[in-house]
Amino acid sequence: MDISNHFPIWNKLTPSQQNSILAASRLHSAQKGTIIHNGSLDCIGVLVIKSGQMRAYSLSDDGREITIYRLFDMDVCLFSASCMMPDVQFDIIVEAEKDCEFWIIPTPVFKSLMDESAAVANFAIQIMASRFSDVMWLMEQIMWKSFDKRLAAFLIEESNIEDSDILKITHEKIGNHLGNPREVVTRMLRYFQSEEMVRLTRGTIEIIDREALEKLSDR
Amino acid sequence: MDISNHFPIWNKLTPSQQNSILAASRLHSAQKGTIIHNGSLDCIGVLVIKSGQMRAYSLSDDGREITIYRLFDMDVCLFSASCMMPDVQFDIIVEAEKDCEFWIIPTPVFKSLMDESAAVANFAIQIMASRFSDVMWLMEQIMWKSFDKRLAAFLIEESNIEDSDILKITHEKIGNHLGNPREVVTRMLRYFQSEEMVRLTRGTIEIIDREALEKLSDR
Repeated sequence: MDISNHFPIWNKLTPSQQNSILAASRLHSAQKGTIIHNGSLDCIGVLVIKSGQMRAYSLSDDGREITIYRLFDMDVCLFSASCMMPDVQFDIIVEAEKDCEFWIIPTPVFKSLMDESAAVANFAIQIMASRFSDVMWLMEQIMWKSFDKRLAAFLIEESNIEDSDILKITHEKIGNHLGNPREVVTRMLRYFQSEEMVRLTRGTIEIIDREALEKLSDR
Repeated sequence: MDISNHFPIWNKLTPSQQNSILAASRLHSAQKGTIIHNGSLDCIGVLVIKSGQMRAYSLSDDGREITIYRLFDMDVCLFSASCMMPDVQFDIIVEAEKDCEFWIIPTPVFKSLMDESAAVANFAIQIMASRFSDVMWLMEQIMWKSFDKRLAAFLIEESNIEDSDILKITHEKIGNHLGNPREVVTRMLRYFQSEEMVRLTRGTIEIIDREALEKLSDR
């Protein structure tokens, strides 16, 4: 199992392009909680996820967070190499949300592939379009949807990712995903509990009426 | 003056690629207020602005608007050809904000250029990265900044675009740019007036203390 099985357009590369990726990319691992890419402070390269889960988020001047997108097996992250795209004028932080294994293709190597290969450049367009859609969805949520709907959508999404109705996540972490203070999350979760949609225990949130949450989230 | 003077990477195209654009693109004009591209209802092609000003916005289910980006002379709009990028999962509406002249490069023509030319694909990446940055800026504004700062930033930006301290714009239009109801805009403008930052007359907003607005907007 090397990067050739995980890089989505491997078959569109020439043998020499494949070799340059094989020669330059290294497999890394990171424990849950590790910051893998830290905005403009580094430009480590393009990430290709082998296993695990990462979270890309934006950080306000006063330390508030909001999750922009998530990365799972075989996903590719370009913004950890954003110095190769001068028009990218924003910072994203990528952290391991679970223990991760991933390859890093160094920025200059990916940049030169993108410059010479229309296939690689179109693949980059595809990734960027997909992340762009995530951000537009998020922005529309924030603009047009109230927090109860966003929180309901988040609980459903988490439950799908974890394949479980019992979520082990703190209210503070949820706040960091959604860009709201912990108190706001706690208050809304208590409201959901009073409506018998969730059951709260120390450290967990159990979904007991998925249908009602889905209806509220209105996705 | 044909499209060759306005298409930013003209010199990176082969003569045959230049010819295919020259043969396929048509110069159009649109009066202020015309909807040029309407989300998923059309896929007219890539716009290259000759003159005028366009506004790209997102529309909520219940008719509220928020401005995502603006297009000026020599700008290029890809999202009016978004059907060539299946990962673009959002709709943007483009309207003429002033009388406009623009070329349309039909979607299939641009798509085949993007497929065959790394230069064209990298140009598309550059445009998308720039729009992505606009949306990230906007999202961070909405998330982390209060409405007074956003409105102050908007008035400064408008004044720069129009090169005038007297803005002829209705409160409703401002609301459509910023995604807020008219009443909220009017209330905040009256507050700005009481702070002697603007002077309101019927149909105009005059900036009388630019420095204070800039300080408030905190850009």
